[in-house]
Amino acid sequence: MTEPSTLPHEEDGIHDEEDRLLPQYVRDVLEAVEEGRVEDALRLVEPLHPADVADLIELAREEDRVALITALGPEVDADVYAEMNEHVRELVIEEMDPQAAAELTSEMDTDDAVAVLEDLEEEDQQAILAEMQPDDRAAVEEALSYPEESAGRIMQRDLIAVPEHWNVGQVIDYMRSDADLADDFWEVFVVGPNHHPVGTCKLSTLLRTPRNVPINAIMQEEQTLIPAQMDQEEVALKFQKYALISAAVVDAEGRLVGMVTVDDIVHIVQEEAGEDALLLSGAGEGDINEPVREAYRDRVRWLIANLGTALIATFVISMFEGTIARLAILAALMPIVAALGGNAGTQALAVTVRAIATNQLTGANRWRAVNREFRVAILNGATIAILLGAGVTLFLDFTLGWVIAAAILFNIVVAGLAGVLVPVTLDRFGADPAVASSVFVTTVTDTMGFFAFLGLASVVLL
Amino acid sequence: MTEPSTLPHEEDGIHDEEDRLLPQYVRDVLEAVEEGRVEDALRLVEPLHPADVADLIELAREEDRVALITALGPEVDADVYAEMNEHVRELVIEEMDPQAAAELTSEMDTDDAVAVLEDLEEEDQQAILAEMQPDDRAAVEEALSYPEESAGRIMQRDLIAVPEHWNVGQVIDYMRSDADLADDFWEVFVVGPNHHPVGTCKLSTLLRTPRNVPINAIMQEEQTLIPAQMDQEEVALKFQKYALISAAVVDAEGRLVGMVTVDDIVHIVQEEAGEDALLLSGAGEGDINEPVREAYRDRVRWLIANLGTALIATFVISMFEGTIARLAILAALMPIVAALGGNAGTQALAVTVRAIATNQLTGANRWRAVNREFRVAILNGATIAILLGAGVTLFLDFTLGWVIAAAILFNIVVAGLAGVLVPVTLDRFGADPAVASSVFVTTVTDTMGFFAFLGLASVVLL
Repeated sequence: MTEPSTLPHEEDGIHDEEDRLLPQYVRDVLEAVEEGRVEDALRLVEPLHPADVADLIELAREEDRVALITALGPEVDADVYAEMNEHVRELVIEEMDPQAAAELTSEMDTDDAVAVLEDLEEEDQQAILAEMQPDDRAAVEEALSYPEESAGRIMQRDLIAVPEHWNVGQVIDYMRSDADLADDFWEVFVVGPNHHPVGTCKLSTLLRTPRNVPINAIMQEEQTLIPAQMDQEEVALKFQKYALISAAVVDAEGRLVGMVTVDDIVHIVQEEAGEDALLLSGAGEGDINEPVREAYRDRVRWLIANLGTALIATFVISMFEGTIARLAILAALMPIVAALGGNAGTQALAVTVRAIATNQLTGANRWRAVNREFRVAILNGATIAILLGAGVTLFLDFTLGWVIAAAILFNIVVAGLAGVLVPVTLDRFGADPAVASSVFVTTVTDTMGFFAFLGLASVVLL
Repeated sequence: MTEPSTLPHEEDGIHDEEDRLLPQYVRDVLEAVEEGRVEDALRLVEPLHPADVADLIELAREEDRVALITALGPEVDADVYAEMNEHVRELVIEEMDPQAAAELTSEMDTDDAVAVLEDLEEEDQQAILAEMQPDDRAAVEEALSYPEESAGRIMQRDLIAVPEHWNVGQVIDYMRSDADLADDFWEVFVVGPNHHPVGTCKLSTLLRTPRNVPINAIMQEEQTLIPAQMDQEEVALKFQKYALISAAVVDAEGRLVGMVTVDDIVHIVQEEAGEDALLLSGAGEGDINEPVREAYRDRVRWLIANLGTALIATFVISMFEGTIARLAILAALMPIVAALGGNAGTQALAVTVRAIATNQLTGANRWRAVNREFRVAILNGATIAILLGAGVTLFLDFTLGWVIAAAILFNIVVAGLAGVLVPVTLDRFGADPAVASSVFVTTVTDTMGFFAFLGLASVVLL
């Protein structure tokens, strides 16, 4: 009898308490590879899960990766590539000859093979496709014919579909008869004529029902069908809303062509939800494995845009050059007005973008959201205005104190309104509110803040 | 024979193309309730999924919600409350009498009941618990004894556990014999003596194996066990890494006490990944349903912290008051240096925080990440320095042009390094890198930017 297994990966000398590979372990493996001690390397890597092998390759420096993969040989299988970071995988696959890459992708599920191939340059992609078996190739090419990030790209083609006139016993016998059938499925799809899905049946229901009951008596007729063209973000929202474990994907004619399972959805949710922080910051795709020149290209665009908008603020300030020359302390206080406005705007923006992304902000509660941000902004603005006004009065001058207090109250309210109105407006016009909102909002807060502060100061103080 | 079902919720007059409730539909329901046309309201709501009913209640104004819930009566069942936004739910439950709330939570799965109760004030919580049946109450209290956001809080207690000496037939008969057993399960857990998990078996494997095969011959022995104390974010990372569909939760003695299923994990991933954008902006929990006073409390803390750090920048600028008085154009150009530095810092920060959150940045590749940000920053800094320097030279002055170019190159490099070093350092000391990084990084970029620009200008230009 086996002993009750203890917690895996706990103090195993491989993982830390957060399940990441220990730096010392990574060094040991790489050292063994470098010194040609291939057996040592293999012995060290043997207990790893494919996801860990993928992590190991990612953690190795770019120049060490090919040697590592060569040394590990068959340990680096299709499952490892399926788990690998896409930038690292792209680099590694580009180093392979097309035939080896074709063998590799043929071993994968179609959705994983598509994920590997879609990132490659057109030329590399074609070279690998040309080396694949006709049926694998056809499946991959069909998937690639769907738009990027659509259900058609992420769906699996292996699923269990049974005719609705079967009974439970027939369904079970069918699943037992064909060892080639997929193993990772949690529901059976029931199809009518023309392969249209008419219902689903959980395996747990199937297991607990007598063999002679017809499948269409126990199937769930209400089902969420996913059009193959649907964007993966929307697919993910449906899985969350209806707590789905798998769902049928249908083509334009309503025929069952694949299924999406929740384990793929988890990755998409992680990606899409995490993306917003990156998009808001203007860091593009923002993966630490992205090559430097791509990161540069993604980020510099936003910095240049930001340079352009900063010039508007500069123009506003330059209108008050005379005021500043006479009262240089204004220049020292200016950044406070801009920084606090920017910060308050970013807060409202982050909340609004999140609400839009999770389908919580719609036409039905849009004005309520604006009203709510207005009230929060009044409270925030009043608090900061009192603190700052009192401080400036105490250390500098009373009039200057209430000038900056008024300017910052005004700017924080403007920031709150811009933070909600800009993304809501972009969303209404079909733009991604996470992408450009940040630049708009900080431009508004900088410009309005400087204008209010310097304008008021030049009227009141000079 | 049923017709092949068409896509649900497509042009049904209820949902828009993104599966959100149409504003007009929401208005129609609320109008019917307001005018006392209860049957009309019920007829409109009848086709809704519980998740949609929850959305409907969220979309109604606070003052309309009780009337809506009263009118809909039994349509607003435990499933609806389980799907409801926690802030909205808290408000609604506080309006109920404890006995009605106890009835409601008793109908829920333990994990949902815990989610409802954990948000309430201690006093309301105790009042409801006192009204619950002893066994439901014991289950909820046990779950509440685990830390917030731990596996113990999110696990389900209903699961299928079978002894390892059974064969497949016995397992299937057991599942068929007891109609009270849970229905939402995808794997069977095999336990040894003392209820220690020794393996799992997918339902698909069970279905396809002859009845006389012993369960321990087909079970998967390698399993990911989740300690009940583990934080939900780590649980979610394990589900992603190992593509789990469900996992056994064990207590300190290694006994099976529950299971976590992937449909709950999807919500946690959404929450945790989305949280980073909010935390980075200092918007706290940042839910649009959060009451105004809580949103104010969360956000004003960060604005006050930001006010404090902005004063450092003010102090730096005030050191150069004499320079600015003589050359007020410097005051107009200052915000460019600060804005671009802040933006570049935020980009590096967002990428780093994301990499830490997804376990991609560890001790093994920390210095590589710093090196990478340094190189991106040099490229970004050089590009912006050339553009800005040339512009200033062209429109203002050559010396001022290279002064601002040098200052901005310096500040963008400082920003890139701060953007990666600050979160990495916070993470090493066990702090959440998303929470305080932003304030640190912008303080560094503001201060360094002003110092470099004004310092260089006062040396070179005066």
